[in-house]
Amino acid sequence: MQIEEKLESLGLVLPGPPKLPPGITASFEWVRVRGNRAYIAGHGALTADGAPAGPFGKVEQDVSLEEAYQSARHSALAVLASLKRTLGDLDRVTAWLMVNGFVNALPGTVQTTNVINGFSNLILELYGADAGQHARVAVGVAALPVNTCVVIAAEVEISL
Amino acid sequence: MQIEEKLESLGLVLPGPPKLPPGITASFEWVRVRGNRAYIAGHGALTADGAPAGPFGKVEQDVSLEEAYQSARHSALAVLASLKRTLGDLDRVTAWLMVNGFVNALPGTVQTTNVINGFSNLILELYGADAGQHARVAVGVAALPVNTCVVIAAEVEISL
Amino acid sequence: MQIEEKLESLGLVLPGPPKLPPGITASFEWVRVRGNRAYIAGHGALTADGAPAGPFGKVEQDVSLEEAYQSARHSALAVLASLKRTLGDLDRVTAWLMVNGFVNALPGTVQTTNVINGFSNLILELYGADAGQHARVAVGVAALPVNTCVVIAAEVEISL
Repeated sequence: MQIEEKLESLGLVLPGPPKLPPGITASFEWVRVRGNRAYIAGHGALTADGAPAGPFGKVEQDVSLEEAYQSARHSALAVLASLKRTLGDLDRVTAWLMVNGFVNALPGTVQTTNVINGFSNLILELYGADAGQHARVAVGVAALPVNTCVVIAAEVEISL
Repeated sequence: MQIEEKLESLGLVLPGPPKLPPGITASFEWVRVRGNRAYIAGHGALTADGAPAGPFGKVEQDVSLEEAYQSARHSALAVLASLKRTLGDLDRVTAWLMVNGFVNALPGTVQTTNVINGFSNLILELYGADAGQHARVAVGVAALPVNTCVVIAAEVEISL
Repeated sequence: MQIEEKLESLGLVLPGPPKLPPGITASFEWVRVRGNRAYIAGHGALTADGAPAGPFGKVEQDVSLEEAYQSARHSALAVLASLKRTLGDLDRVTAWLMVNGFVNALPGTVQTTNVINGFSNLILELYGADAGQHARVAVGVAALPVNTCVVIAAEVEISL
């Protein structure tokens, strides 16, 4: 599979299934497939065993812009891991469509665009400009699940 | 109709059409249908006559987590009421796809996931695991219309 | 073309391609087309040459409600400019579906609905009630790119 070979050549390893902390329940699917669409729930960065990796807190206060960029990149790995579990093969994603990026931000933080680039750049590197391109929102929000610094959701087209 | 029978058996009643407070205008549709998709605008909890039910303010400060969970559940009833008015029959929803949940939150609130479960759990109870499952985002935002504590939007597949 | 004639008759001019400030990179497309859907990235108001027009800062503190309404209206012009560059002809948009509006807001701001009406009202004026109608979310967020006061994303149906 082409995408997984690229991940391997980049030295990137997909994390395990997301594990929520005690007391937090996920009444949703990480990836919802219907026809030629996959709807991807909000993912944050995960450790190898699927625990929230953070870093946690507010970008530019508790988390540097570079750390937040890396967290967005790791959110992409978490998304890819969920897609692989659901689709079987990451090559089934034929087009990235829309990416919704949320940054745990203080009022007035202006660098949300660059932070979410950590996600987009990895997707573009793996899928190329044709399949990988996507429209995007990158906004700063008051709070994110488990206080992680970046959460990213998406919609993609898949082959049947 | 199966879904409405289930609502009745649970003792749940759908609210009337949303009424906005004086001075606030809604230049949009509560449900936009196109082909086999219905796009559902952000809904908060409503009273029986369609007025904003709240509770109002910040979750964990003005509104308890349990109250916010119930408000998310009532947001689901408001969404179902709008779907019924637009589609005629709630059984026409063949698959829930994506749910976007917004919690009126103070910086650092970490329980947005559990709050939005109030919406997801009711949808799953009514529609079952196949049709009811959905991907989801649950983020904490600085402000919501009429200062309600939870607003939820969604996209669903419908039969023609 | 009908929509562009309407824009002209209203004295409205579409801005140039978005220019981001130095140091901010956009790793995404402003409009992503796939089949009969166009996914529109978050757009803020732009000056004629495509620079961020703002106004900047928090609505109700740094920016009045009327200024924010106008900024939402100008966000619509920025979106239409991106759609024209991608689609060639604005008449190819056959149906507006979902609009996601984000207001740069202080905690507790309650007027996000009226602000985003600036976008919706212009779309409805141009496209009419059939093609122009859409579902919508209007939430207040902690931070927006370049600290602009309003950002709006959307999904539309297009003719092939």
